[in-house]
Amino acid sequence: MRMYDIIENKRNGKELSKEEIEFFIKGYTDGSIPDYQASALCMAVYFNGMTEKETVILTEAMANSGDTVDLSMFGALSADKHSTGGVGDKTSLVVAPIVASLGCKITKMSGRGLGHTGGTVDKLESIPGYKTTLSGDEFISQVEKVGMAVIGQSGNLTPADKKLYALRDVTATVDSIPLIVSSIMSKKIAAGSHNIVLDVKCGSGAFMKTIDDAEILANEMVKIGKGCGRNTAALITDMDMPLGSAVGNSLEVIEAVKVLKGEVKNDLREVCVALSAELISLVFSLSHREALEKVNDALDSGKAFEKMKEWISAQGGDVSFIENTDNFPKAEYEFDVLADGDGYISSMDTEKIGLTSVILGAGREFKEDSIDFSAGIMIYKKTGDKTDKGEKMATLFTNNKLSFEEAEKMYRSAVCLSSVKPENKPLIYKCVR
Amino acid sequence: MRMYDIIENKRNGKELSKEEIEFFIKGYTDGSIPDYQASALCMAVYFNGMTEKETVILTEAMANSGDTVDLSMFGALSADKHSTGGVGDKTSLVVAPIVASLGCKITKMSGRGLGHTGGTVDKLESIPGYKTTLSGDEFISQVEKVGMAVIGQSGNLTPADKKLYALRDVTATVDSIPLIVSSIMSKKIAAGSHNIVLDVKCGSGAFMKTIDDAEILANEMVKIGKGCGRNTAALITDMDMPLGSAVGNSLEVIEAVKVLKGEVKNDLREVCVALSAELISLVFSLSHREALEKVNDALDSGKAFEKMKEWISAQGGDVSFIENTDNFPKAEYEFDVLADGDGYISSMDTEKIGLTSVILGAGREFKEDSIDFSAGIMIYKKTGDKTDKGEKMATLFTNNKLSFEEAEKMYRSAVCLSSVKPENKPLIYKCVR
Repeated sequence: MRMYDIIENKRNGKELSKEEIEFFIKGYTDGSIPDYQASALCMAVYFNGMTEKETVILTEAMANSGDTVDLSMFGALSADKHSTGGVGDKTSLVVAPIVASLGCKITKMSGRGLGHTGGTVDKLESIPGYKTTLSGDEFISQVEKVGMAVIGQSGNLTPADKKLYALRDVTATVDSIPLIVSSIMSKKIAAGSHNIVLDVKCGSGAFMKTIDDAEILANEMVKIGKGCGRNTAALITDMDMPLGSAVGNSLEVIEAVKVLKGEVKNDLREVCVALSAELISLVFSLSHREALEKVNDALDSGKAFEKMKEWISAQGGDVSFIENTDNFPKAEYEFDVLADGDGYISSMDTEKIGLTSVILGAGREFKEDSIDFSAGIMIYKKTGDKTDKGEKMATLFTNNKLSFEEAEKMYRSAVCLSSVKPENKPLIYKCVR
Repeated sequence: MRMYDIIENKRNGKELSKEEIEFFIKGYTDGSIPDYQASALCMAVYFNGMTEKETVILTEAMANSGDTVDLSMFGALSADKHSTGGVGDKTSLVVAPIVASLGCKITKMSGRGLGHTGGTVDKLESIPGYKTTLSGDEFISQVEKVGMAVIGQSGNLTPADKKLYALRDVTATVDSIPLIVSSIMSKKIAAGSHNIVLDVKCGSGAFMKTIDDAEILANEMVKIGKGCGRNTAALITDMDMPLGSAVGNSLEVIEAVKVLKGEVKNDLREVCVALSAELISLVFSLSHREALEKVNDALDSGKAFEKMKEWISAQGGDVSFIENTDNFPKAEYEFDVLADGDGYISSMDTEKIGLTSVILGAGREFKEDSIDFSAGIMIYKKTGDKTDKGEKMATLFTNNKLSFEEAEKMYRSAVCLSSVKPENKPLIYKCVR
């Protein structure tokens, strides 16, 4: 078999065989197939696409290109949740303890933040003592005991995807549905969970800007997840404004705790409830109504909050920070962004709000950058809210005073004020099962 | 400027700017742009094409990526002829002395054979003493004196094309009209001639298998040649059977000499006359009829043959071989291929006939292979000819007796016998000006 023929076949619009796709992934991972052939193939896939069958094979081949996590000891109870990334998206911190408190086994490997989106691992590291690295045995044993563990991506998971994604990133071949889907799903398949709920974000702060695009991606991911033998569902949720009020690592942990305590009942809670209900209805074959009841009960009874404390404590975190979020150190400097006119917030460029938090020190522009855990934004006025001139729209937090000017400018450029109240948009657009 | 954006623009179907194309060619030549980005761009060009304007810019950028030959001392008299490659294609050996004898300045840099097609440089090296390498000064001074010189490609001509072609060859991006055209034409532009006639071969022994494909290529090459400021025309000629009777290096030189002496008046002469007439009508702005008259006169008067002797002699070749072609050493072994039935030759798989000559030792499978100058094929029966059982269809020549069995098998598999006489096809399909 020759890589040349595989490129030519895809270029000519043919469906690649299992042998061809596996030959490519094996050869690209071990270095026997060079980057220049892989990038030519990716561009041919960009133009000619891949069938569902091809994408399932590609996903499985990438999942099997390195280590895979064996969760068979948890039977059909293992559950995972993945978000395509957004601003203020701290849903994992809320959903995981909810569903773990209801008997699911949550085994989550999360990423770090890059660019305008934050990462769950960074947020958790703002809790003193929290260990984002566990050995395989520690990981499994914690899940057995506590029902959940959240760690950073470790080991040699999907090396084919790591290499291929880095290549696609510099050859303008990222925007291809089968390549996006196989990249995301291969990691989920390798991570081993039997049940997967995908949160496909849609809007100005998301990778998918339109509902149509998000729906195509969600449909494909669910098809491919099922094709790989996993229970899979997806929610398409709004990312045309940040989720919740907090953007920034410890600020987001605090907001997540408040939702779990029942102190905050906002859009963040609504999305977390929907995701949790979707996940437990997959795991326990419940109706949507039954699932919703159980999830609301877990929140209202404090069971979910207790699970969070148990989890953080099991993973080495100082649980006093969760019990009393005032313990989190505050940023040295804060700055209020006041409305410069009367009216309604008509739109928020959510990517720019994410970038504002990066300027303040809460995120990374480059992989090597360090993070200021207490930096970030508290948002008081979101799309649809009325504001008067001089009212506080947001507060910026940082330990680097010099960043305020640029951050304020960026934040203001992200927020549109209008005399007309914008139409209400749904928070959850669609569920794909 | 970033290569990423150039790839993305082409992927999105945009016309690339002069700056973008020049940035790519410069960066790819100097190594600052990696192969994997270049191959992604080539695949995007495969799918989205290039406008005439883009292709002209690409051609000029590649022509200027290395050395260029200055022929300004010859004014509008410099002339070049290029064939897209075929089997038994020794037209350069005939056309060059004809047009040089008529006052054109022929400055030809030819290639070596590879695969089923032969190369002019190999053919000339079968003449003892012939030097295929001249210094720049020697080259120009010979053209000044004799009116022509034919050497191998030397120096650092179009390094961008060399690198890009090697990459396209392993990434399934060869079959793209703008990339093919810019590759061929950049070499012609760098070689400096003001007048260029292209012989676009069409049929089973050519790169272009159909007349439609050949016509697209010919039209594009003529457009791009003109766009680069050169007088350009193209003939589309038949390569559904070998041209002339001889395939193999010294065998082809002998046939060329016989055409120049007027001893052979076959399809080879017809194509050479047409190409020569096209070239001098470009150079001297003659009507087709005037040009044809001059060319036939050059052949019939012996002027063209005298020019060949003058040229070979000037370039160090033993002219006694041209005066008496019996001087060429014969291959040690010959083997007649006899017809195994009565009928007409209905078709010839010309690529296979080229490969037969490679088996006999006349060509190269790999760049490093050495060549047996006296090996090859003399063909007596071509498409449309009647043959009786037991009649000689061809003679195979070699110094490696062991190759006969495989060569005969290959030759027989290339030739189709039928009871029905096939339709006559034109030798010259079309002229593109």
